[in-house]
Amino acid sequence: MSQAHSYAAHAADQPLAPYTFERREPRADDVAIEILYCGVCHSDLHYAQNDWGATEYPIVPGHEIVGRVTAVGSDVSQFRVGDVVGVGCMVDSCRHCHPCEDGHEQYCLNGFTPTYGAPDRQDGVFTQGGYSDKIVVNEHFVLRMPEGIDLASAAPILCAGITTYSPLKHYGVKAGDKVGVIGMGGLGHMGVKLAKALGAEVTVFTRSEAKIEEARRHGAHHVVVSTDEEQMAAVAETYDFMLDTVPVQHDINPYLGALKYDGTHILVGLLEPIEPAVQAFNLVFKRRVLAGSLIGGIEETQELLDFCAEHDIRCDVEMIDIQDINTAFERMQKSDVRYRFVIDMASLKD
Amino acid sequence: MSQAHSYAAHAADQPLAPYTFERREPRADDVAIEILYCGVCHSDLHYAQNDWGATEYPIVPGHEIVGRVTAVGSDVSQFRVGDVVGVGCMVDSCRHCHPCEDGHEQYCLNGFTPTYGAPDRQDGVFTQGGYSDKIVVNEHFVLRMPEGIDLASAAPILCAGITTYSPLKHYGVKAGDKVGVIGMGGLGHMGVKLAKALGAEVTVFTRSEAKIEEARRHGAHHVVVSTDEEQMAAVAETYDFMLDTVPVQHDINPYLGALKYDGTHILVGLLEPIEPAVQAFNLVFKRRVLAGSLIGGIEETQELLDFCAEHDIRCDVEMIDIQDINTAFERMQKSDVRYRFVIDMASLKD
Repeated sequence: MSQAHSYAAHAADQPLAPYTFERREPRADDVAIEILYCGVCHSDLHYAQNDWGATEYPIVPGHEIVGRVTAVGSDVSQFRVGDVVGVGCMVDSCRHCHPCEDGHEQYCLNGFTPTYGAPDRQDGVFTQGGYSDKIVVNEHFVLRMPEGIDLASAAPILCAGITTYSPLKHYGVKAGDKVGVIGMGGLGHMGVKLAKALGAEVTVFTRSEAKIEEARRHGAHHVVVSTDEEQMAAVAETYDFMLDTVPVQHDINPYLGALKYDGTHILVGLLEPIEPAVQAFNLVFKRRVLAGSLIGGIEETQELLDFCAEHDIRCDVEMIDIQDINTAFERMQKSDVRYRFVIDMASLKD
Repeated sequence: MSQAHSYAAHAADQPLAPYTFERREPRADDVAIEILYCGVCHSDLHYAQNDWGATEYPIVPGHEIVGRVTAVGSDVSQFRVGDVVGVGCMVDSCRHCHPCEDGHEQYCLNGFTPTYGAPDRQDGVFTQGGYSDKIVVNEHFVLRMPEGIDLASAAPILCAGITTYSPLKHYGVKAGDKVGVIGMGGLGHMGVKLAKALGAEVTVFTRSEAKIEEARRHGAHHVVVSTDEEQMAAVAETYDFMLDTVPVQHDINPYLGALKYDGTHILVGLLEPIEPAVQAFNLVFKRRVLAGSLIGGIEETQELLDFCAEHDIRCDVEMIDIQDINTAFERMQKSDVRYRFVIDMASLKD
C-alpha cells in the first residue's frame, strides 16, 4: 500500500478538504501513476454533492487524469516507468461481455467500474479519483498520451472529448456532413472542434448572442441563436446530425425539425426525462432518429488522443490549484468557466 | 372524364354515403384501374372525421387498393390492360428531390401527394381514394400484384404491411435478431409475420392475456404480457429491435429497458407527444435509439408484395360490402376487427 494525498468531499454539504488514504500496490496487470493534471467535470460536482444519491463519503472526484508511470506490475506489457499516460472515466469492466468484446466497455453488461465511487472488482475497496497525487489502474484502462500533445489541455479529452467524439464516429460523421452542436460548454466546444476536424460543416446553436464570436473562434462555420424563431425557421430540415450537449431539460422538437430526413439527434448531456415531450411526428414523418451516447470505449479514446495530437485539438482550459477547487465548483455551477478547469496537481505539494 | 361511383364522407359528423364524381382521363403516363378491393385503414376514419383538421369534403377514403388495369396512357411502359395492380398511400411526389431519388417518395421534400385529400400536382383537383369503383394513377405509383398472391388479403399490405416492413428492412433486421412487436392490430400482426419471415425471433408485447394465443397463431415465438412487471423484468436488455405499432400515448420506457445496448425502438403508429416522457438515461446509458418510420417507398412496396407472395404472407382480413362501411368504422373504433376490414368493391354495383 502507498499513501495518497488528495482533496475529498466528506459530506454533501461540506467543501472539499485534504484527505489522505491508501492506494493499493500495483497488481501484476496494474500501472501506478503520478498524477500531473486532472480536469474538473460536472459529474465531479454532482458526485461530491450526492446529487445522484449514490455517493459514499469520503469521495475523491476526478476522471480526467494525466500523469506519469512510476511503477508497473509484472505482467504489464504496454507501459513502462516514465511513460506519460491518461485515465478517463473507467478503471475496469467485466472484459468478457458482448459490449466489452466490442471495445465498448462503457456499455459493459455487468457495469463498468467508474474511476471514483464504486467498489473495485477484486478487493471491493471503493475507487477514488484524480484529485490526488497518485492512482493505480489496470493497464487496459490506461491511455497513452501521444507525442506532442499539450498535457494540461489534454486532460478533458478523456471525458468531455470522448463523449462528443464517440457518437460522431459511431454515426460516421464525415466530410461534407452538416452537424449542429447544441450548447457550448465543456462538451459543446470540443464537439465543434472535433466535428470540424472530421470535415463536417459545423453550426453552433446557442441561446446567447454573446457566444457567437466564441463559437466562431472554436471553428464553427455558422451560429444560430436558438431563441430567434426566424433563424430557426431558416434552418429547417438542414442538418445530418445534432450533437446535443445540454445537460438540463430543454425542448428538442425545434432541433428535430432542423434535421434532414434520416437525420440523427444525439443526446450526450441530458439524463433527465425529455420534457417538453418529444413530438412523435417529428420522428415518424422524416424517419429521424433520437439517440443517446455515453463517453466512449478505451480503444476509441486512444484513437481520439492520437487524433487530437495530429490535428492539434485542445480543450480550452483554465488552470487552477487544488486549493481553489471549491471556488471552481461554485463558478462551474454558474457556468463561469471557459471551458474546463484543470487542476495542476503540483499544487497539492504546496 | 369518366364517372366514378363511391362512398364519401360529406361532413365530419355524418356517415359515409354514396357519391358520384369525375375521374380524369388517363394522361400519357397514367394507368386507369377498376378497383376490386380496398382495405379500411384507421387513417380513413381520422380523415373522414376531420380529426387532423385538414379534410375538405366530400372525401372518398381508401389507400389500400387492389384492382385491374382498364386503360393505359400512351407513355405507360410497365402496365397493360388486364394487369392486376395495387395503389397504396401515395399517388405522386416531386420525383427529383433527394428522398425521391433514393426511392423514398414518402419523405419527399416537397410533400408526396396522398391517395386521397390533397390537390393533384398538375390540375389541382383533390385526390379521391379507393372506396370507389375506379381510379387513375401515374404509373410510377402503381404496384404490380405478383402471381399467386391472394388479392383480397393483399390490399392491406399496401399500407399496414409496408409500414412495418420498411423499418425492418431499413434497420437490417435479419435471421437471429430478437424483435419485439408492441401492439397487435392491423400493423402489429403484419409486423409479426414479416419479422418472422425475415428470420427474426419474434416476441409480441400485449396488455391482454387474451391475445397470447392469437399472437402465437401469427407466428410469434414468445408473448410477453406488458402489464406484468415480472415478465417485463425478465426480458430486460433482450431485444435488438422494438416495432412499436401502438397509435395512442403509452409509456415507452419499459420497452426501451427491454432493448439491448445499441437496440432500436421504432415508432410507426404514434403521432402524438411521447408521454410519459422518454427518460434520456434509457437512451444514453445503453446507446439506444428511438426512431420513427412512415409507410414505405414504391420500390420497397413492390419488393414487399413479391416477398409476401413468396412467403405466402397474408393480412388477416374481414371482407365487407361497401354498404357496411359505417358499421365497420364503428367496430374499428372499438378495436373490434381481426385485423383489417377489406371492402369487396363488387358490392358497389348492388
